[in-house]
This record gives sequence, C-alpha cells and structure tokens, in this order.
Amino acid sequence: MMSEEKMEQPLVGVVMGSASDLEKVQPVFQTLEAFQVPYEAAVVSAHRTPHLVSQYAESAAKRGIKVIIAAAGLAAALPGALAAVTDLPVIGLPLSGGPANGMDALLSMADMPPGIPVATVGVDSAKNAALLAVRILGQNDGELSSALARARARASSEVIEKTELLRNKGFPMWDPKGVDKGE
Amino acid sequence: MMSEEKMEQPLVGVVMGSASDLEKVQPVFQTLEAFQVPYEAAVVSAHRTPHLVSQYAESAAKRGIKVIIAAAGLAAALPGALAAVTDLPVIGLPLSGGPANGMDALLSMADMPPGIPVATVGVDSAKNAALLAVRILGQNDGELSSALARARARASSEVIEKTELLRNKGFPMWDPKGVDKGE
Amino acid sequence: MMSEEKMEQPLVGVVMGSASDLEKVQPVFQTLEAFQVPYEAAVVSAHRTPHLVSQYAESAAKRGIKVIIAAAGLAAALPGALAAVTDLPVIGLPLSGGPANGMDALLSMADMPPGIPVATVGVDSAKNAALLAVRILGQNDGELSSALARARARASSEVIEKTELLRNKGFPMWDPKGVDKGE
Amino acid sequence: MMSEEKMEQPLVGVVMGSASDLEKVQPVFQTLEAFQVPYEAAVVSAHRTPHLVSQYAESAAKRGIKVIIAAAGLAAALPGALAAVTDLPVIGLPLSGGPANGMDALLSMADMPPGIPVATVGVDSAKNAALLAVRILGQNDGELSSALARARARASSEVIEKTELLRNKGFPMWDPKGVDKGE
Amino acid sequence: MMSEEKMEQPLVGVVMGSASDLEKVQPVFQTLEAFQVPYEAAVVSAHRTPHLVSQYAESAAKRGIKVIIAAAGLAAALPGALAAVTDLPVIGLPLSGGPANGMDALLSMADMPPGIPVATVGVDSAKNAALLAVRILGQNDGELSSALARARARASSEVIEKTELLRNKGFPMWDPKGVDKGE
Amino acid sequence: MMSEEKMEQPLVGVVMGSASDLEKVQPVFQTLEAFQVPYEAAVVSAHRTPHLVSQYAESAAKRGIKVIIAAAGLAAALPGALAAVTDLPVIGLPLSGGPANGMDALLSMADMPPGIPVATVGVDSAKNAALLAVRILGQNDGELSSALARARARASSEVIEKTELLRNKGFPMWDPKGVDKGE
Amino acid sequence: MMSEEKMEQPLVGVVMGSASDLEKVQPVFQTLEAFQVPYEAAVVSAHRTPHLVSQYAESAAKRGIKVIIAAAGLAAALPGALAAVTDLPVIGLPLSGGPANGMDALLSMADMPPGIPVATVGVDSAKNAALLAVRILGQNDGELSSALARARARASSEVIEKTELLRNKGFPMWDPKGVDKGE
Amino acid sequence: MMSEEKMEQPLVGVVMGSASDLEKVQPVFQTLEAFQVPYEAAVVSAHRTPHLVSQYAESAAKRGIKVIIAAAGLAAALPGALAAVTDLPVIGLPLSGGPANGMDALLSMADMPPGIPVATVGVDSAKNAALLAVRILGQNDGELSSALARARARASSEVIEKTELLRNKGFPMWDPKGVDKGE
Repeated sequence: MMSEEKMEQPLVGVVMGSASDLEKVQPVFQTLEAFQVPYEAAVVSAHRTPHLVSQYAESAAKRGIKVIIAAAGLAAALPGALAAVTDLPVIGLPLSGGPANGMDALLSMADMPPGIPVATVGVDSAKNAALLAVRILGQNDGELSSALARARARASSEVIEKTELLRNKGFPMWDPKGVDKGE
Repeated sequence: MMSEEKMEQPLVGVVMGSASDLEKVQPVFQTLEAFQVPYEAAVVSAHRTPHLVSQYAESAAKRGIKVIIAAAGLAAALPGALAAVTDLPVIGLPLSGGPANGMDALLSMADMPPGIPVATVGVDSAKNAALLAVRILGQNDGELSSALARARARASSEVIEKTELLRNKGFPMWDPKGVDKGE
Repeated sequence: MMSEEKMEQPLVGVVMGSASDLEKVQPVFQTLEAFQVPYEAAVVSAHRTPHLVSQYAESAAKRGIKVIIAAAGLAAALPGALAAVTDLPVIGLPLSGGPANGMDALLSMADMPPGIPVATVGVDSAKNAALLAVRILGQNDGELSSALARARARASSEVIEKTELLRNKGFPMWDPKGVDKGE
Repeated sequence: MMSEEKMEQPLVGVVMGSASDLEKVQPVFQTLEAFQVPYEAAVVSAHRTPHLVSQYAESAAKRGIKVIIAAAGLAAALPGALAAVTDLPVIGLPLSGGPANGMDALLSMADMPPGIPVATVGVDSAKNAALLAVRILGQNDGELSSALARARARASSEVIEKTELLRNKGFPMWDPKGVDKGE
Repeated sequence: MMSEEKMEQPLVGVVMGSASDLEKVQPVFQTLEAFQVPYEAAVVSAHRTPHLVSQYAESAAKRGIKVIIAAAGLAAALPGALAAVTDLPVIGLPLSGGPANGMDALLSMADMPPGIPVATVGVDSAKNAALLAVRILGQNDGELSSALARARARASSEVIEKTELLRNKGFPMWDPKGVDKGE
Repeated sequence: MMSEEKMEQPLVGVVMGSASDLEKVQPVFQTLEAFQVPYEAAVVSAHRTPHLVSQYAESAAKRGIKVIIAAAGLAAALPGALAAVTDLPVIGLPLSGGPANGMDALLSMADMPPGIPVATVGVDSAKNAALLAVRILGQNDGELSSALARARARASSEVIEKTELLRNKGFPMWDPKGVDKGE
Repeated sequence: MMSEEKMEQPLVGVVMGSASDLEKVQPVFQTLEAFQVPYEAAVVSAHRTPHLVSQYAESAAKRGIKVIIAAAGLAAALPGALAAVTDLPVIGLPLSGGPANGMDALLSMADMPPGIPVATVGVDSAKNAALLAVRILGQNDGELSSALARARARASSEVIEKTELLRNKGFPMWDPKGVDKGE
Repeated sequence: MMSEEKMEQPLVGVVMGSASDLEKVQPVFQTLEAFQVPYEAAVVSAHRTPHLVSQYAESAAKRGIKVIIAAAGLAAALPGALAAVTDLPVIGLPLSGGPANGMDALLSMADMPPGIPVATVGVDSAKNAALLAVRILGQNDGELSSALARARARASSEVIEKTELLRNKGFPMWDPKGVDKGE
C-alpha cells in the first residue's frame, strides 16, 4: 500500500483543454487511482486561458508534480504550450472529434519543433497516457514498478483465461501448455 | 502614393516561429512593399519564447498594428497563441517541411477551438497571406482598395498577354475579342 | 450599444452555396447578432447560379459590405469565386459532408492560386468564421473591439467557473489562486 | 484521313488555368494531333479572369466545340466553373503541384455538387484526358472510332513486342502463343 | 418528346459490380428517365464474372450503346476493365463503403494507366454520372441539349426561389433584382 | 469429402490479438468450415503475451499447421511478430477500429521490413483471409482446388441469378445469353 | 541443391503490368534465384492486354505454376484480374509512382471484394513478395523450408555482426552475450 | 558536472531496428552527450532478432537503464515489442522512409493497444526523443533539471539574438525591450 504522504502530494498533473473533455479523460483518473498515484486535475486552455497555462506549467514542479498529462482535441496546442515553460515530462493525449477525427490533434502534439518534446500516445488512449506516467514515476519507486509488473502479468493471465473460456465454448483452441510440456 | 506617416507606423506584424522561416516568408514582405503597406517583422516562437508571444500579441494593437500574419511549420501553434491574447485578426501561414509536408501545420492553424479564429491560407502561400492583410486594411483605405483593384486588373491582363504570346508561337488560341464582337 | 445606422446597413455578407447549408451556418448569424453586427444573407451557388456570384461580389462593396463569409461543402469553389471579383476580405467556411468529410472543402478553399486569398477557418467552424469577421470590423470600431475583449474575458472566466464546479464535485482540482498568492 | 473541314473547325477546347501549365498539358495536344482531332487552346483562370471563363463556356458550343478539357492545379475550380455555364461535357485534368501533390486538385474536380458533372481523370493524366475526348467524339465518327480501336490494338502489340525483347535478353518469358496452340 | 425508336434502343449501359449496389445507383436511373434517355442495366463483376465484363464491353457498341456508366466500390476495377475492351466513353462512379469510405474506389478509377481513360465522378455522385452521360449524348441531339439547358435554368431558379422562401421567413436576404436595376 | 485424418489435424492457425476480435474474425472460421479445412484458434497478443507469440509461431509448423492467419487492429504487430519466428506463410487480417479506422493496422501489416513478408488482405476482409489460406493449401490438394473452382463458379452463377431477379422486377437488364447467340 | 527437374519447371509466375516495371521487380527475380526457385516472367496488362491476363491466369496452374506474383502501379487491377480467373494464390506487389506514391496501388490490391483474395505486400516490397512465394512453396518442400530457416538465421547474424562493427568503431554497444551469461 | 559513476553506468538505452538507422538516430547520441547522460546503443530488430528484443527489454532495468529510446521505420513494431516486456518508459522515434514517408511508423508506435504505452515523438525527431529521456531522468536529478532549464533559456536567447542579427541587416524588427519598458 502507498504511504499517506504519497496520497496527499499529487505527483501527476492531469490537464484538460476543456471541461467537456472530462469523459474521455476519465480512464486517466481510474488508472492512476488503480496504481494509487495521487494526482491533481486542471482545466486550462491554451487558447482561452493562456495565462493559466503558463502559471500551471511554471508552478507544477515547485508543487511536487513529476509528470504532466495534457489532453486536447483539434489544433491541440496545450501539451506543447506546457512543455514550453516547464522541464517536466509532458504526455500528450490527443482526443478525437471534428472532421479529422483526432488525427489533427495527434500531429499537433507529435510534430513539435526540436527542443520541446511531447510524449504523444494514440488518439483517445487515456489509459496508456496514465500508464506512461506510472512507468515514468516507477523508475524511482520500487512499489510502483512492482505494481506495473503485476499489472502486466494480470493482463497476460486474462488473455489465457479468455482462451480457456473460448475452449469451453467449443472453439478448437491452441493449448500453450501442451507446447511447454511436449517440445 | 502613401503618406509619410503611414510609412513610419507599421500596420502589419509579420511574425515567424523561427528565423529559418525567413526565405519562405519573403513574398509577404515583397507583397506588402508593393502595396506600400508599412510592416514590422518579429521572430517569436510559441515553444521557445512563449513569453514573447504574449508580449507581442498584447502590445500589437497598442502600437498601431492592425493585422498580424503568423508563419510557422509542423505543430504550428504560433497563430493560435497570438490570437488567444489579442483581438486583432490573425492570418495563419502554414509552412511546408517535415514528413507531413505542411499538412500538419495547415490543420494546426485551421482547426482552432470555437472562440479563437485564425484566418488560414494555403501551405507556403506567403503572397496570399500578404494580400489578405491588404484586403483587410483596404476596407478603410480607399488608396489601398484601388491598388488592389489595379493589381487584379493587371493579373487579368497578364493572362491575356500570355495568350497572345502563345498565339504568336503558333498555338491555335481562342480569341476572346472575337466572342465579344461577333456573338 | 450599436447605433441605429449601423443596424440598418449590413456590414457582413453571409453567402451560402445552398439553402440546405443553413443549419450549419446558423452559428454565424447567432455570433454576429451577439456582437450586434448587421449582416445580410445570400444563397448563391458557384455552380448553379454563377452569374449571381459575380453580381453579389461586384455589388457588395458598393452596398457597404465590409467582409464576406462564404460557406460551402465538397469542391467548395464559392469563396474563391467571390474573392476573384471583389477586393473585400473573403472568409471561407468549409462544411462537412460527403466521403471526404469536409477535407475536400477545406483544401478547395485554402489552396487558392497566388493572387486570390481566402481566409479559411476549420471545417464547420461557423462561430470562428463570424468572430474573424468581427475582428476584421473591430480594427476600426472601438465598441466592437471592446466587445471582443469582453467575450475573451468571459470565455476565460467560464473555464475557471467550470473548474470550481468540478472541485465542488470532489475532483482534486488545481487552484490557480494559490499559485498567484503563495508561489 | 480526316477531311479538310474537320481540320479547320476545332472540336475540342483545351483550357488551362495558367500559361505555366502548358508543359504538363502538352500530351493533350500531341494525342489530339495523333488522332487528327482539331482543337483550340485557351488560357483562362477561374480566379484571375472569371469573366473569360463565362465567355469561353458560353460561346464554346456555338463555335462548334464538342468537348472541353480543363486543366488546373491546387483548388482547381476551372472545370466546375466551365461546366456551370455550358452543357458540353467537361473533362477535368488535375495537375500536380503544391504540398498536397495534386490530390487537392483531384478532389476539387471530382467532388462537384449534384447537377454539374466533371469527368475527372488522374492527376497529370494528360494523355487520358485527350483520349477521353476522342472517345466522346468517336461516338458519332466512324473514322475516329476505328482509329481508337487501332490504337488499342497497337498498345496491345507493344506489350507483346516488349515481351519478345525481354525473351531475347534471356528472361524466362511466358509464351502466350504456346497457350493458344497447346491447351 | 423523344421518339419511340429512341425509347426502345438503350443508349446508356449502366453496369454495377454487385446487385447490392442498386440502391446507390438508383439516381442514375431516375436522372436518365427524367431526360427520357433509354438505358439498360447490367450486373457484371470484374472479379466474379470477368468473362461477362469482356462480353458486355465487346458487344455494347454493336448493340447501340453510346456511353457506359460503371459503378463499383472498394478496389473498383470495373470501369477500367470495361474501358480496356471497348472504345466507348466509360464513366466511373465510385461507391462509398469499407474503411476508406470510397476514396479507394475513387483512386482505383481515376489513376488509370495512360491509354485507358475513365471519366470519374465523385464518390456516390450517381446523379452527376447520369448527367455526364446525358451531356455526352447531347452533343449530337438538339432535344437533349435543350433539356440540359432547361434543367440548368431550373436549378438556378430553385436557388432564387429558396432565397424568397428564406426572405419570407424573416432572413435579411440580399436581393439580386435590386442589383440589376440600380447599377 | 475430406478425410477423417484431415479433420483432426488443424492445417490453419487462426490467431487473434484479443478475444474481443472474435466477432470480426468469425467469417474466417465459417469459410474454413465451408471448405472443410481443419483449423485451430488462438488468442495471443504481441503486446500482452509476447512469449506466447513466440511459442505459438515456433511450434506451429511442428504441429502440422501449414498457414497462419493473424488478425489484429491498431498498431497491429501480431502478424509480423509471428512471421519473425516461423517460416510458414502468415496472412495479416487488419481489423477496423480506432480513429484511423483500420488504416493504421493495414500499414502496420503491409509495410514490413525486407526479409519478413506478411500477406495482407483488406481491412476486415475476414472471408478473403480464409480464402487465401485455402488457395495456399489448395496447391497440393486436388480436392480443395476443385472446391475453390466450384465456389468461384457459384459466385459467378449468383451474379447471373440476381440479374434474372432484377429482370423479373422490371429492370431493363442486359441479357448475356443474347450476346453469345447473336454475335 | 535443387533438382534439375525443379529448375526446368517454373513454379512461380512473375507478372508485370508493364515492361517498365522491370527494374522495381528485379529483387523478385534475385530472391527467387537465391532460393533456386524456378520462375517465369510475363508482361501482361489488365488494361492493355486483358485477354492475355485471362490466358495467363487460366493456363498457369496447368503449366505447373504454384504461386503468382503480380506487380503493378496506380489503379493496380492486375493481381485482382488474375485472382478472378485462377485458384492459385496471387501475391500483389504494389509499385510506387504517380502523385499518390503507390498508396493507390496498395489499396487497389488490398481492398478486393469478398471472394477474390490478393496477398498484398508493401509498396515496392519486391523482396518480401518473393519470400512470401517461397514460404508458400516451402510448405511442401523440406529443402526450401530449411533454406528459409537458414536465411532467417543469417539475417539475425548480420544484425549481430553489425553490432560488433559499431562496437569496434567505439559505440557503447549493448552486449547480448553478457546477458545470457550473467543473468 | 556529472559524477564519474554516472558516466560509467548507462541510463538510457538507444535501440535501433537496423544499423542503417544510425545516421537518423545520431542527434539522440549528440543530445544525450550534451547533457552528459551516459547511454548504451543496441541494434535489435523486432522482425530479424525477436529473441534479442526480449533479452534486451528483460535485462535493461536490471542493468540500470532508466529509459529506452526505440527508433524504427515502416511497420515500426520495435518500441511496442520492448514496452511489452519491460516496465521502463519506452520512447518511440518513428523514422521516415518508404512511400508513406514515416506516417506508417508514427501510427505503428502511437496506436498501441490499451496496457502497453509508447511515448511517441514526431517522425525523425531524434533530438526531441533524447530531450524527453532527459526530462524523465531530470525528475530525480537536480543537475539535469538545471541543465534543461539552461538549455531552454539558451534556445530562447538564440531567438532574440537572431532578431538582433536581422535588425542589423535592415529588417524592421519588433523590439521586445521597448515593450517591457514603455508599456
């Protein structure tokens, strides 16, 4: 279990360009909570509240934030704007929406000029954005690192369990155990 | 001819994300000069000098700037960042470069969130960016408006002159004059 | 408040390629009305009523129109056709529809030949098209300019209010006021 | 051989948006000449000389033109603008150029609104544009129709001749004659 | 009115790759009927009945067909396969469907090798495919040509009538008649 | 009919990246069953169970598998990962899903580095993936080869039967039999 | 070493849409020769020699061909046209060229209708097309299968040799042997 | 200055899919050296040496590696394959090349399934990949964090210095200092 202190001090800043992005960002919160990683949320817009973007990014490290996740759609300038005023790693989470279906947001985050990196994940890949933050924190946190390993093992087991389920339904499933034994 | 006062007070701000964009932006300067529109240039980067972006946009109107042209490539956040802190019309000039060949810059400028408009022209369409600025200024400047009309007439004449040239080279060219007279 | 005279003389011409575009163009009217900018509407098609396109564009400036907004979908030739016969600034509003989902309309407007600029906004970005027109008019109209500044301030406040709302719902929201004071 | 009268009266109008398109349009002229189809050329721009576009399209049928080929690049409005004021079949020849590499021109021609068709060929497919015109004329011209059949036969023979050439160079080529005989 | 003989002898061959394309092709039939152009329909697949494709294309001209419209989706080889064995003009109608939403069909039709032209219209542009056929037939048929002119005039009137309708609903519509008189 | 032995020994391995892909993969099973080709199914993920991918691919040939069909969506690494550790032919079946609608999966399968081929079919083309496997097996199995020929003949007949159906509904259908006789 | 008989009887048919594709197809020949797989070449065009396409596909299996590789660019109908008249596995090799850079050819091959599969490899992936053919043949040819395994082992060794080369140049290279031993 | 110990123990693993990627990856090494971050390089291919991919990823954390940068082109499975067997943060660097110009590599990295995140940067953005690694390491390394802040300040100064250079060449440059003072 994570210590009290850890729970109180947010380590990940989850920044959205608009409050209407909340639903798509939800899996970020759920994933961070599953790993007991304390976080804070913020709605700051690169275009409607540019001064808050600077304030957020400038103060984040001082307040103990270690990683920022920035979610935005369309011409998604938010992660780049944050990365321009902080030295924390910034994860860009492009959101779908609009006629280009999020491809504009993906390119707006990935194609940053040399000097200001954004760690971009797939469109609407909220869970992966959170897991990337956990991996970054896990570097220096044995507990988190073990939790990640357990999660990967669980995901692997689930695949095997589903295989059993399908076999029970009558599908002619391959049996990996047979391989291990026989060969 | 334009008045002295006009020549001294820049009306158009031409902002580039990088000094290396200068060559592609050149036709902006040439076109503004052809229309005797005084301008100022600035190199301010949304990602490397975000504070200058704010400073530029906040001070532009006070210094008499009427239109801003913002040129940038890749994840071209510059025009949006300017439009977020000024109420002047901002023209976005997407520049080619990178594997997406400027399409990323075009979408990063056009797909702005509701509330912050950017007047986007084609990739590398520097001349059109300048002409759009002149049209905006021409609204309240009879001289400029006449100059634009003359330029359009000249472009039209050039097409007809080239037709003559081709006819002289032996091409079986259609003769618009015949149409006017005969039919 | 805007003067009577202003209300009577339309300053913005909102041109649609088809009456069926009305619904998507609606936010243009709403936004212009919110800023008390008088406008006129016109349905003229570059392909079905090409003579009306010329008539509209040729007469617009004489009738006092200062900016044209032209909305069209598919091979959206309308804004370019208008820009070819007037020197007013023409704003292109590409509309979604068809298998290319509006990307064809966006490129048909942005990729104009040198000499004839169209100020293109995002696909279906009707509100931004109107705001761009207001910015252009605001250059020479202190009242409009102030109204724009107030609108930006309001948009900014709304972001902060939504933050409060989320905080009240129990989200661990970042508090910008804390930053200003303490840090 | 084609009759004198035919040579004098142009049947195909080859319209370019710019004199600089001449090189890419060249195969249109060569192909029409190979089929002894009389043609006229015209440089008229949908954006720089819109009045000439109308004049050309309105007068074409009266002057005996049966098919129009319209070549243009970028936001290629030309074929649609012609098709809007004539009932002749209009063939659109999109030209490469610009960052979208001609895909914008292709969509600007194909995605016409219902009511105004443009017969679009591939980007830079000048030869096919001309052959399409010849096919249209060939409907009512036995000589042309035979010439087309001969051209297709020749193209077919060339493929077989090249096969022989490769066989003589030592490539293990399949022999279609063997198939006909043996099986 | 069209003559009896004309009604009996089909002039347009409407070829579909699959019977399931019938619904999307419907406007082709409706438009041809509106112009009283007799037609025949055929379901022949480039991939499932290649021999019928050859049979159809080889016999079409002999049976009096003047133009072929070929509709297909996905890797839409049908129009090209027909154009390869006939000298009639072949109109390609790409149909939407599949993850590429018809863009694959559009390119499969437009990007033909030099020598074999396909007159491609927009994705699902069934009405335009039919109108293109009518234009091609209209070359040598005064009645059809007049009918096309009337249809264009009607489309133009409809735009103006819709304008009146909107004016009656209270929209501040531009009045083209005012322009004609005044200037 | 296929022999008992054949039914017992799976010849095709159908591998899915996730149990949730089952529905889209269903036509693979149905098609293989229609051809009485014995198969086995496996859920192994390149990213969640990488060790099972190796185990599966390494053991497949030894267990008598002749062809592998690998279905996956998004960054679809599965077929490539299998092809990297087996010398069996691997068929890649890209699945739709996500904002790029399966185009990412298609390119992730087709654009393999030189040395490791994947036989890619269209997005969601489950039936074709299975038929490709049957063609590969059919090389050395006269029965299968005949079954394929019969299936192609049946598909061809169905097209002709549908034509009859449409004729009976009153459509003016082309009659291929007329062609065979008459000409 | 492969038997004499094998060398004489071609097992792979390498079909090109045009003799000009020869250079891009070259690695197919080289790779097949490296594996001592006898092949034949053919230049047959879906659009210029459609009858040869049928002849080739119909006679291929009878002449002992086991796999067909079909290379084509643009609207690449060739592999589909072959697959429509044979039950052999057909490998589609899309070639670059034209403004869509081969993406049109890739989609023209992959997006086949249900019933007619084409095994598509990447654009210009000539070596992979050949290796896929060898894998298909290797199913029933122990020698070929071993040769494939040796080739994969060699490719693996080459990676390790290059690592040594880089280490000798002073790069701080990871040493896989250390891993095996130590951990 | 960084401690001796740090220099000896590599913290970043730079993995390439092919030795031929070395040139495009070079800026990764240069940037890491500029920040005195010790690194190791490895050439391991997801498709040619899959066992080395597992070995590398499994052993990396044990050997002290904190972040992995994985560069690959085309169907770039490498970063995903590494992220599947380690819990370290994996940065994906898509490389240009092939007809899709690196867009396939970008999507192959970003569009990972839920559970296995890859931190993707722009195509060929080698410098940003390295800077992202430094930001991740900087979380727990005050020296690195300060070095990053200095680098950002330097980049900012360079923009201002270039402005001076342009002013000296006669360009009418905006003077930010004037703004600070005056307004």
